Amino acid sequence: MRIAVIGTGVVGRTLAGRCAELGHETVVGTRDVSATLSRTDGDGSATVADWLAANPAVRLLDLPSAGGFGELVVNATNGAASLQSLAGVGAENLAGKVLVDVANPLDFSRGFPPTLLVKDDDCLGEQIQREFPDARVVKTLNTVTAAVMVDPGQVGDGGTTVFLSGDDAPAKALVAGLLAEFGWRDILDLGDITTARGTEMYLPLWLRILGARNSPQFNIRVVG
Amino acid sequence: MRIAVIGTGVVGRTLAGRCAELGHETVVGTRDVSATLSRTDGDGSATVADWLAANPAVRLLDLPSAGGFGELVVNATNGAASLQSLAGVGAENLAGKVLVDVANPLDFSRGFPPTLLVKDDDCLGEQIQREFPDARVVKTLNTVTAAVMVDPGQVGDGGTTVFLSGDDAPAKALVAGLLAEFGWRDILDLGDITTARGTEMYLPLWLRILGARNSPQFNIRVVG
Repeated sequence: MRIAVIGTGVVGRTLAGRCAELGHETVVGTRDVSATLSRTDGDGSATVADWLAANPAVRLLDLPSAGGFGELVVNATNGAASLQSLAGVGAENLAGKVLVDVANPLDFSRGFPPTLLVKDDDCLGEQIQREFPDARVVKTLNTVTAAVMVDPGQVGDGGTTVFLSGDDAPAKALVAGLLAEFGWRDILDLGDITTARGTEMYLPLWLRILGARNSPQFNIRVVG
Repeated sequence: MRIAVIGTGVVGRTLAGRCAELGHETVVGTRDVSATLSRTDGDGSATVADWLAANPAVRLLDLPSAGGFGELVVNATNGAASLQSLAGVGAENLAGKVLVDVANPLDFSRGFPPTLLVKDDDCLGEQIQREFPDARVVKTLNTVTAAVMVDPGQVGDGGTTVFLSGDDAPAKALVAGLLAEFGWRDILDLGDITTARGTEMYLPLWLRILGARNSPQFNIRVVG
């Protein structure tokens, strides 16, 4: 499958690297390719240029080119800027595509822990679906840290839960297949895209569990 | 231990019944004892009068009397009315007491699923602690349905997680002991009372999992 990951942060690189490793034709989209390649202020990890050198199967493209390439597009941008980034991809490049939204609308303006920019009776997943009505938005993976997204076996016996929200059942089935390739075995379909209000509002609890455990390497398992 | 459960709904009765069963001297507090005893519009379960007849070790008292009796007081009232109910108990009857808050500030005014009356940068647990600064507030059990609160063995192998939030370490230790009596083995102390923002904001996800599973008999286990 041709996969376009929008966003060059840790989440985007982790997802793109894993998709390429699984044999998917994978590109990463960024607003300004040359600026991204010359960026040296990495977030503690390698620069994007270093990362691309180590992942030669992945190509870096501008946003419209990445969107045009992908059959499946992943929003791995900062949640506070996702609508703007996806506008850069272009509605025409998202129309009919499965758009996997893994972002959270975190507001760091008042420090840590962040609050949510949208919540309660709306959410980022819904905002994206409204803004790009011809995209087939599926919210998932936003409840775990990047390393766990692509390798759920890193926590416990690998049997923790990942959630799906979206209005398009075939799109959710396609995404569930990709999640299974990542190693997910317990995939819980919560329903339509409004159910992403639930997984986005889980973030404040995730942040407190992170604080109590001093590590983001965890997940929850739904047991019943 | 002398335990006063404030609230005669399913949550209050379930907690009070279990505390009495464990040998604690237990009372239930209600605003108007005679009105509560004559109430016939049960929420699908037995009336309070029937329930008291079946649980003769539990006494029904008015709010100040219940608060005055309890060494440990449990807020099991409707979250939208908790501050008002606890005002009825009286600050003087809560001073120095461990006040276990199991309520959620749910807003059903726009139907189901409810939204939250307070969230993000404040929560009900903090509101209660601010309103009753001499009480030792511990938030817990608000992430599971009543039956699971007092019998975690009902889900899976009983090893799911319950959370604690509060500013007073000895109060949290006392509550952890009571939770262990209920059968909880995985008790995760998240930190001070502000961490209750996390567990209260989990409710929207809890409601969507409820919707997907068609049953409230579940819980999450934190795995890492």
